[in-house]
Formats: sequence, structure tokens, C-alpha cells
Amino acid sequence: MDSLRRLEEIFAHFPGIGPRQARRFAYYLLGKPPAFIKEFTSLIEEVKKSTAECPQCHRLFIGGSRICSICSDANRDQSTLMVVARDSDFESIEKSAAYKGLYFILGGTVPILDKEPDKRIRLKQLLERVQKSAPKEIILSLNTTPDGEHTADIVKDALKAPLYLGKVTILGRGLSTGAELEYADSDTIKNALKNRN
Amino acid sequence: MDSLRRLEEIFAHFPGIGPRQARRFAYYLLGKPPAFIKEFTSLIEEVKKSTAECPQCHRLFIGGSRICSICSDANRDQSTLMVVARDSDFESIEKSAAYKGLYFILGGTVPILDKEPDKRIRLKQLLERVQKSAPKEIILSLNTTPDGEHTADIVKDALKAPLYLGKVTILGRGLSTGAELEYADSDTIKNALKNRN
Amino acid sequence: MDSLRRLEEIFAHFPGIGPRQARRFAYYLLGKPPAFIKEFTSLIEEVKKSTAECPQCHRLFIGGSRICSICSDANRDQSTLMVVARDSDFESIEKSAAYKGLYFILGGTVPILDKEPDKRIRLKQLLERVQKSAPKEIILSLNTTPDGEHTADIVKDALKAPLYLGKVTILGRGLSTGAELEYADSDTIKNALKNRN
Amino acid sequence: MDSLRRLEEIFAHFPGIGPRQARRFAYYLLGKPPAFIKEFTSLIEEVKKSTAECPQCHRLFIGGSRICSICSDANRDQSTLMVVARDSDFESIEKSAAYKGLYFILGGTVPILDKEPDKRIRLKQLLERVQKSAPKEIILSLNTTPDGEHTADIVKDALKAPLYLGKVTILGRGLSTGAELEYADSDTIKNALKNRN
Repeated sequence: MDSLRRLEEIFAHFPGIGPRQARRFAYYLLGKPPAFIKEFTSLIEEVKKSTAECPQCHRLFIGGSRICSICSDANRDQSTLMVVARDSDFESIEKSAAYKGLYFILGGTVPILDKEPDKRIRLKQLLERVQKSAPKEIILSLNTTPDGEHTADIVKDALKAPLYLGKVTILGRGLSTGAELEYADSDTIKNALKNRN
Repeated sequence: MDSLRRLEEIFAHFPGIGPRQARRFAYYLLGKPPAFIKEFTSLIEEVKKSTAECPQCHRLFIGGSRICSICSDANRDQSTLMVVARDSDFESIEKSAAYKGLYFILGGTVPILDKEPDKRIRLKQLLERVQKSAPKEIILSLNTTPDGEHTADIVKDALKAPLYLGKVTILGRGLSTGAELEYADSDTIKNALKNRN
Repeated sequence: MDSLRRLEEIFAHFPGIGPRQARRFAYYLLGKPPAFIKEFTSLIEEVKKSTAECPQCHRLFIGGSRICSICSDANRDQSTLMVVARDSDFESIEKSAAYKGLYFILGGTVPILDKEPDKRIRLKQLLERVQKSAPKEIILSLNTTPDGEHTADIVKDALKAPLYLGKVTILGRGLSTGAELEYADSDTIKNALKNRN
Repeated sequence: MDSLRRLEEIFAHFPGIGPRQARRFAYYLLGKPPAFIKEFTSLIEEVKKSTAECPQCHRLFIGGSRICSICSDANRDQSTLMVVARDSDFESIEKSAAYKGLYFILGGTVPILDKEPDKRIRLKQLLERVQKSAPKEIILSLNTTPDGEHTADIVKDALKAPLYLGKVTILGRGLSTGAELEYADSDTIKNALKNRN
């Protein structure tokens, strides 16, 4: 296989990309000046080299420090720990500027029929972290999809007393921004009614 | 215009229907046996004749009674009144089986720049209803769209003391069923965090 | 089941309509004045009563005449017969104003694995029509979908000599209006090349 | 701006990619092993370095030769020249295996109100090529969109006698694969009828 086809094949494995768009990516790069190509490939290598997994929260971060900027920030609320599935969820939460505590990245979710949750998520590491730092509240911020709710159940179970004696909460359920009642499912309405204020 | 074209034109004004689907509707009916056509047109007339607007909650209902089956149901919680924009919102709430009080149908929402809310919604009738029955709680169940939130503000304003001394609540905001944090907007995350439990 | 639910159920069987839109249709009609309802139901009955199947081309038509306006129009080219699957295909062709001959409506298409094409399409009636009027050309205007092409093959086979000695043609294949080569399939490109002009 | 943000920004300029997917691309790469990153960046540089524009047909090609593999292939029909807008159109045509002549890549199309077509497409180079090689037939394979048809008109005009005395053709118009007559536009039906066979 020639190198152009191989490049297309790699692009075709990017998230959400099919063979046709992969080809357009390859031609897009071919049409760019050599200086751009140089910057692009250097950037990829630089980002990869400067990225490390924080040993405390397990998120990917950039910079030469040992732990990430959030774990090392004394101004964050050290008594609250939010558990999320992925780095992208962490990014969403940070963007909302609504949370000021610490994080723990599970690394994924557990599909409903999966027999070995330990291979899917960092459950052991979470328990160690909780025993070491004993937060007052652990907020499980997981998708309200079947996999997300299953994962929340597994984590809640693992955090039971006597291992953890603090509070375990989940994100509030209800109407999201822009929701229309006519199209809302019964569960969402039930939760929105329960959480009315 | 011949009657077939006129029928297509009427179908083309049905909600969400364009000229092409309107034509398919007309041909669909033409292909049906006469007995079906008779049943269909009789049903439309019967439903229309037997439908009335409940003088108390203003929803459309079927049956010869003076007020609708919910307003006349002594088992419903008479101390709670839920305000919704449309009959279809009422149907969604009833389908969830999560609410056991009474209703009031506003008849629509008020667009943000609208100067005469009274022409859009049954505000006067709502205030009369509230003064007569003095519910303990009024739940505003409106879409979390700009128009829905604007309408909620108008109703809340109109219900201020001394006219109404009970509690006015709105449906809880948060993650709806199936929500993914990666795609959630910041407002929804903020509300989900505030309403965590 | 009450009559409103029954009406919703009928609407839910309209082509392309699901239960939710069916309910909106019912409420749409409920919100209309009685005069509108009267016109609507009368129109449906009138259209149905005044519609007949043309004994010659088998299309549905309105009017008291024995055969339809096209079959009885001496100005149409009597030597060309176009075979289409459905009334809606006939409407598309007429709208293009590109064809001035006569029509024959097959009444459907034959799915690829179907064993009894005679039950799906008016094949026997077509052969009778062709033997009686002996057109110079028969144009098969069928969808270029698998079912459409399969039906064209069946009709072509049935029209073989000695039964029919005239010309049998199919619509030209190639680029449709607005086509983009980047997204065109290989068959379409092959045909467009063959039919270049 | 840190290098991760800069990388996301570059991905956000890839064809069809928004900021959210750009971020997912960046995290996708971060999650890959260093060996993969090395292969990926080397491949991009290699592809770019080994790619040249063929001086004869102007398509991008890989390999150390002076002209591309198609222009140098004596088995291709030297008397037919197909004019396409972009490399991706060329790829579609080659994939169909229906064409065995030579190509010329215009480099784009001319928007309808554009005053300077020469800046948009390689018109001058096409005329030089035609004068030098005098093909018997020039096939204009352009999209049947407004811009594509406008570009075809411009090229046809420029190729008029006495400059070029051979045949200029365009791809056949008609029903594409999978077309449904009910949804076909009148122009397509007209062309399909004209090109029936």
C-alpha cells in the first residue's frame, strides 16, 4: 500500500471519520504549504511529548510538573471529589465554571453486561485515592445513559461503608436547557417534578 | 381548483406537512375503501362535536360533562395547580404519571419581544382561577426555551403578593435521560450540580 | 377506545406519520372552527366519490367521464405508451411537461424475491392493452432502485416478440440535476459516460 | 495559547470539522502510543514530500517521475481528454473504471457571478494543452450544480473554433442509481426522457 493510502487509513480511524472524509483530509494536507506541514507534525509530537497522565486524578495534562494544575491548586476545594468517565467530561465541567473541587478520571464506563468492571475503569485507584484523602463528598458525574448509570451503581457500591463514610451524590436530573415538555420522556418529567424549586 | 387539489392544500397546512406529503395523503385516502372513508370523516365530526374546552382548566376534552375528568376528580390533589402552555404538554405530564394535582392550560407562550402577553396567554383567567381556589403551590411547567422562560417570568410576576401568597415553583433543571456530559451546555451542568442529590 | 384515540390511530397509519404527529393532527383539527371541519370532511367524501380508475390506463381520476382526460385526449401521441409504477410517478412525469404520449399504471413494483408478479402489478392488463393498441414505442419509466429494475426486467420479458414487435425503451441513466461527481456511484458515472452528448 | 489548543485549532480547519470534533481528534492522538505518533507524523511528511503536481494534467501524484502514471501510460487513449474540477472528481471517475483516456484538472469551479474565471480555474493551461495535443474529444465532467454548469459553459466557450476543432461533450444527464421518479425534478425527467434507450 502506498503512503497516501496508509495515511487515509489512519485518518479513517479518527473518531467519527469515514473513508471518504479521510481521503479529503489527506488531500487537504497535500494542498498545504510545506511550512504548515512542518508546524502540524511538530505540534503533534510536541503535544504528545509534553503530555503526561496525572498520577492523582489520571487526567492527561501538559507541562513538566509532577501532578496536574488542578490537583496542585491549593485554592480548589480539597474536600470534594468529582468522578467523571473521561477527559472530555472533565473539560465540559470545567467549561461550566460551576465546580471548584478536585477530580478523578475513571477512564471509561462499564457496559451493562460486562463481567470485569475492573478492566474498564480505575476502580481500585479510586478506592485508594478515597482512602488516602477522605473527601467529604464524592460527586458521581456520569452520563445518564444505561452505561453511565450502570457505572454509577458500580462505583456507589464500591464506595459503601465502612470503606467510605462521606456523602456520595449524583448530578441532578431534570429539564436541560432548551427542553420541550411535549418531547420530554416520562423519567425526565418525574425527576424534574421531584427536583422542582 | 378541483376538489383533489383543494384537499391536498388543506393537508399541506397540517402541522409539519409539505405539499408532497399532502399529495401522498390525498392518494392514500383515494386508495381506501368507501367504508373507511365514511368511518374517517364520521370520526372527525364526532370528535369535533364531542370536544369542549373545560371552563376551569381550559383544556380540550371529550364527553358531555360540564368540566373535564381531571377537574372533576376529587381524588386529585386540589391544593396544587400546574400551569402548562399547551394541551400537548399536559398530555406529556399525564403520561409520566408523576403528577396528581390540577392543571391550567395557558394556551401558548409569549415571545420575548411581545408587548401584549394578555393576547397570547390566559393570564387574566389564571389569576381569577388562583383567587377563587387559592392553591398551596403553583408549579410552572414551561419549556426551558427562551419563550418558555420568558412566559414563566411573566406568570411569576403576575402571581406576586398580595394577589397570591402560596408557593410558586418551576420544574427542576438538570441532566435529562440519556444526557452526555461531553455535549451538555454549561447552564445544564450548573443546574445539575446545584440540584445534585 | 374513545373516538379521539381512534382518530389518532387512523392518522398514525397515514404515510410517513408516527403516533406523535398523529396526535398533533388530531389536536390541530380540534382547534379548527366547525365550518372548516365540515368543509374538510365533505371534501374528502366528494373527492372519494368523484374518483374513478380509468379502465384504459388504470390511473385514478376525477370527473364523470368514462375514461380519463389523458386517455381521451386526441392531441396526445397515441403511438407512445409510458409504463409507470404508481399515480405519483405519473404526476411527476406530467409535471415535467416533457412527455406527450399515453400512460399505463402498473399499480406497484415487484420485490426481487417475489414469486407471483401477477399479484403485484397489472401485467395481464398491460399485455391486453398493448395487443389492442399496438404502440410504436413503450417507455418503461421505473425507479432505478432494485425493485424498480427488477420490475422493468419482468415487463420487458413479458413484452418480447412475437407478442409485441415495437420498441421498448427505458429512461436514460446519468447525472441528475445537482449531482456531484465526488459522491456519484460508479454505475451512475459509467452510464453518464456512455450517454455523454 | 498552549500547544494542545493550537493543535485543536488546526484540526478545526480540517474539511467538515468543528471545534468539538477537533478536540476529540487531539485527545485521540494523545491516547495513542508514541510509536503510532511517530508513524503518523512521518507518514504525513513523507506523503507531502513525495507528492508533486503533474505538469501535464495538474493532478497531485506520488512518485519520483516527471509526469504522473496516467499521463505517462501509453495504453490510455491519448485522443480523449476529460476535464474535471478537482482531484476528488478524478478519483471518482477512475474508481468507476469506465474511462480510459487522459485527464485535465481545472483546479476548481467558477461561481456564477465571478468576474475573473482565470483566477479560479486553469483555463489558460487547458487551452495550451489542447493546442499542443489536439485530442479528438474533450469530455467536460463537471458537477450538474449551478457552479459546475457555469464552469462547463466557460470552458466550452473558450474551446470554440478555430482554437479547437474536435468534439466537446458533457456527461449524460438522467436518472442516477437509486433514483425515485416521485422525487425526481422536472429537468432530470426531461433529460432522462431525451436520453432514453
